[in-house]
Amino acid sequence: MPVKSKHIPRATIQRLAVYLQVLEALKSEETEVVSSEALARACDVNPSQIRKDLAYFGEFGVRGVGYYVSKLIHSIKVSLGTDRIWRTALIGVGNLGRSLLRYQGFPKRGFQIVAAFDCDPFKIGETISGLEVMCPRRMKENVKDLRIEIGIITTPTDRTQRAANYLVESNIHCILNFSAARIHVPDHVFVEYVDFFHHLYALTFKLNTGAMQRPATFSKN
Amino acid sequence: MPVKSKHIPRATIQRLAVYLQVLEALKSEETEVVSSEALARACDVNPSQIRKDLAYFGEFGVRGVGYYVSKLIHSIKVSLGTDRIWRTALIGVGNLGRSLLRYQGFPKRGFQIVAAFDCDPFKIGETISGLEVMCPRRMKENVKDLRIEIGIITTPTDRTQRAANYLVESNIHCILNFSAARIHVPDHVFVEYVDFFHHLYALTFKLNTGAMQRPATFSKN
Repeated sequence: MPVKSKHIPRATIQRLAVYLQVLEALKSEETEVVSSEALARACDVNPSQIRKDLAYFGEFGVRGVGYYVSKLIHSIKVSLGTDRIWRTALIGVGNLGRSLLRYQGFPKRGFQIVAAFDCDPFKIGETISGLEVMCPRRMKENVKDLRIEIGIITTPTDRTQRAANYLVESNIHCILNFSAARIHVPDHVFVEYVDFFHHLYALTFKLNTGAMQRPATFSKN
Repeated sequence: MPVKSKHIPRATIQRLAVYLQVLEALKSEETEVVSSEALARACDVNPSQIRKDLAYFGEFGVRGVGYYVSKLIHSIKVSLGTDRIWRTALIGVGNLGRSLLRYQGFPKRGFQIVAAFDCDPFKIGETISGLEVMCPRRMKENVKDLRIEIGIITTPTDRTQRAANYLVESNIHCILNFSAARIHVPDHVFVEYVDFFHHLYALTFKLNTGAMQRPATFSKN
């Protein structure tokens, strides 16, 4: 199924990620068909939102039936470009980097980490999840040989820009940055910043403004 | 400074998180004042967006000067409720859980993990970053004693609902869920889902629709 639009709002992509997770869970329970109401409930959105989001890539479901789970998973993956495996490199083998290298969930979602880099001589040569940690000086040759298209930065903040420079010089145009530091890259390079703290802020903002009832036993010291 | 609005859009909270990071970096470089243009450039947004976001809590900067860095940090923290430390508990001491327990960045951003839980008898009793891993059956008493207000779930998907149940029964009304599983909780409990894959999807969507130039040396197999 062709993607109907070259621009999909960020919020829609976020919801598509949720739909995919819920649909994959349904599939693993061998559910073949799901009504838009049931899917909406499971995803915590309203049915009209789902219909609107799916309309971006021409998926409307079957009236009176709902959505065929496997077919919808495939359609969403095609539209996001994750009906194939994207080869990625990780740079920064600290706690978070190791945790990502060991995370088993990447291939199912269309990604594989095929190389790990760190400038620490004590880490170079170490093997994690089958990958030998390499010196970033060797990145350029490896990116080409291993056909890497996306770089994942998990360095401390004071090494983030240098990591980005290595990726850009290695001809990687897509960067996922987990570090708290902002990076400067040429215009043709696309950066996504991962920061889970805004989720915590959304919680504290609610607690703070009294939008939620606070447990009576807690004082606000 | 009082928060002017009880509702701030999610996108604004996300940007406030970015502003805070950039401002903290400026502060660590001993920058005292920043123009809205320079702040906007460092944050990758336009100046009018910053002014609009800050207007939610009545912060407008000083005409011809800009923003006082420390004062603005404080204002944003007050508005988000992170001018204090929120005490959190983590449940699920796997790779990600360990990585978060070892992460040093929490207190600076207003959070502290004060308890860690896991149902695996081989993990109970282990000490990570000074915290002894406890059985979730002991959660209720500890949540009260340790004045825990936010729960962080980092379990595998098949244990996520059980972890959520423990938190809810322990009177925790705010949950940050890193697991890929959706959870069912009473209406008064607020859940935030952390999923970094939508950031990867945003990258692949761009690559896939040709919105970005693909490196010429890579084939799309």
